[in-house]
Amino acid sequence: MRIFIAGVDGYLGWPLSMYLTARGHEVAGADCYHRRDWVAEMGSQSATPIRRMTERLQAFRENFGTNLQFIRGDMTDYNFVWNFFRAFQPEAIVHLAEMPSAPYSMIDVHHSAFTHTNNLLGTINILHAMRDVSPESHLVKLGTMGEYGTPNIDIPEGFFEIEYRGRKEILPFPKRAGSWYHQTKVHDTNNIMFACRIWSLRSTDIMQGVVFGTRIDEMGDDERLLTRFDFDQSFGTAINRFCAQSVIGMPLSPFGKGHQKRGFLPLRDSMQCLTLAIENPPEAKEYRVFNQFEEVYDLTELAVKVQKVAGDLGLTVDVRNLENPRLEPEEHYYNPDHQHLLDLGYDPTRDMEAELKIMLKDLIKYKHRIQARSHALIPDIRWDGSRKKVTYLK
Amino acid sequence: MRIFIAGVDGYLGWPLSMYLTARGHEVAGADCYHRRDWVAEMGSQSATPIRRMTERLQAFRENFGTNLQFIRGDMTDYNFVWNFFRAFQPEAIVHLAEMPSAPYSMIDVHHSAFTHTNNLLGTINILHAMRDVSPESHLVKLGTMGEYGTPNIDIPEGFFEIEYRGRKEILPFPKRAGSWYHQTKVHDTNNIMFACRIWSLRSTDIMQGVVFGTRIDEMGDDERLLTRFDFDQSFGTAINRFCAQSVIGMPLSPFGKGHQKRGFLPLRDSMQCLTLAIENPPEAKEYRVFNQFEEVYDLTELAVKVQKVAGDLGLTVDVRNLENPRLEPEEHYYNPDHQHLLDLGYDPTRDMEAELKIMLKDLIKYKHRIQARSHALIPDIRWDGSRKKVTYLK
Repeated sequence: MRIFIAGVDGYLGWPLSMYLTARGHEVAGADCYHRRDWVAEMGSQSATPIRRMTERLQAFRENFGTNLQFIRGDMTDYNFVWNFFRAFQPEAIVHLAEMPSAPYSMIDVHHSAFTHTNNLLGTINILHAMRDVSPESHLVKLGTMGEYGTPNIDIPEGFFEIEYRGRKEILPFPKRAGSWYHQTKVHDTNNIMFACRIWSLRSTDIMQGVVFGTRIDEMGDDERLLTRFDFDQSFGTAINRFCAQSVIGMPLSPFGKGHQKRGFLPLRDSMQCLTLAIENPPEAKEYRVFNQFEEVYDLTELAVKVQKVAGDLGLTVDVRNLENPRLEPEEHYYNPDHQHLLDLGYDPTRDMEAELKIMLKDLIKYKHRIQARSHALIPDIRWDGSRKKVTYLK
Repeated sequence: MRIFIAGVDGYLGWPLSMYLTARGHEVAGADCYHRRDWVAEMGSQSATPIRRMTERLQAFRENFGTNLQFIRGDMTDYNFVWNFFRAFQPEAIVHLAEMPSAPYSMIDVHHSAFTHTNNLLGTINILHAMRDVSPESHLVKLGTMGEYGTPNIDIPEGFFEIEYRGRKEILPFPKRAGSWYHQTKVHDTNNIMFACRIWSLRSTDIMQGVVFGTRIDEMGDDERLLTRFDFDQSFGTAINRFCAQSVIGMPLSPFGKGHQKRGFLPLRDSMQCLTLAIENPPEAKEYRVFNQFEEVYDLTELAVKVQKVAGDLGLTVDVRNLENPRLEPEEHYYNPDHQHLLDLGYDPTRDMEAELKIMLKDLIKYKHRIQARSHALIPDIRWDGSRKKVTYLK
């Protein structure tokens, strides 16, 4: 299939380009390197040394015997999107070109506004370009499990049937997201659902859990093919941060009471799931939702797991809770469905400890790079709009 | 109270400034005259002759013995909003500064993007300025009944309690809006709900029905105080368009089968309801929803009512359905609640025919202005992205 990856320079986009090429697909990608700038703005850097795109493309060609069709461009520019679609005629579009950080969106009004325009306009442009240029193509959009919030009832995959005052209806599950970033994902979801309905487009909206990991097999031993690994307060996920902390001997730090529950999955499973969605497209007019994660963990439970695996590798670290800079429930009911991908054949990597071991071994090599930016591991962006480093709770 | 009206030059904003001033409130307003430009872009004009703001302010001073504190500015400019809030210290903010047209938002990708940035950034700016400058103030935000769409179950006011797999939860009612414009209102709703929750702000989100009417009593006989009355395909509401059509002897034209049901209320009731919301603010952290309309009508039923009142005034017109340029259900269940405002003391103007008579008499004076732009009454903006005049169905 001809697959276009928007945001191909990012954590997921870069490995996905290799994974799909290795399976024989024709892959094209775009990026405008925003993520590199955002992480720099956070005073941080990727733990893995990321090459500039020209070097990445060279390494790609050497390893896969084919070019990655790359073009630098911003998805918020409609002329760019339209021209790209017309030239490449994508059969699938994987939209990873969004600003993906809750804290970054909460910094101030300007970051909230940027997150809204970047994320919403990118998606609106893609939807219009699909309508006008490639109406048969399939949009695989990265949403997040965070769109649902933490309701006191089970979370279905996108839709549920309810009875209300004696009448029945199938409705989208109501969303209650916890940051401006998560809000933009909810807005995107509403917009994509609308576009599928009126323009008979087709889309898979992936409500993805927290992804962790440093590599996929397709990277082999070529360091130039490594994907980025962020650990700063904005672009590092909880589990990636725990791993970075282990490597430099800094306490693993869940926020607040630390009993927030989230769904997690390894990077390699994210690749597998996205590919299942791409290779099994929905019908025209169909908007479908996949809740994409392998298992739900409480964050403290997870920190203890990382601590144990780190210990096996001779890294001794404490778990020490930090003041929570977010406003969020720290203890809650959480029971989301995740059957749709299993029905398509998703075969989860069940051994989280083995995956953590691979990550930690990779990260030990780059200990100096984490060490050099260790200040970025302690958050100062607070949900109340102030900016002040949080402190350890005891 | 000190009340700030964002969008004070518009259809609702201008009369609201008089209505509130007459009740003894201190009113300030901002506008950047977007609406005047949008209507010009549609090749149309207000049926009532609208004065430029300097003249409006002069007439306001003469009639109400006080200044309307007006400043020209765009709500998408945070510096403007922040400075205005700091100087005026509003107790209530009525946010009418959004692009309010479904067809306008559907013209093309650029109009969709503009609607998103204009509407979302204005609201985001207000929420941040409230947090930083006037955290006790109350945001009265104009949403629309169109946010709900037309589900096959009753529509509550914002929230409902449901049981799902044996557990109960109170959730926001899921929205399924029918245009990019309506989508932006849903996004705003989600954003406001979030800001109230995390920043302890207070807001009333008004899901308003279709407003009709040319005047409120406070305007007296001063023609300079008239509010705008749009009848073009984008900025004229269905009922305002029917009245404009009656005056020039053009058939009243429901779209498609013409059995879309909507909630309606007269302009004077809109003023009454907004004032009830303003004068009875919610608690800190409270986000409440009022469904604001008086009665539900099927659009053909309404056209027949306008036809009858027009006939009483000697205006003979047919009802003749036009091809529907929208993609929407033309026959559907519709039963929205609207109790909250009645509980606060809303006393509806029950006699729609008397209100229609006032409107038609006002419009007869400006028949030549409608006649001069009669082409704007037949839509050419279609939901499929094409632009082609619709034709009569028989």
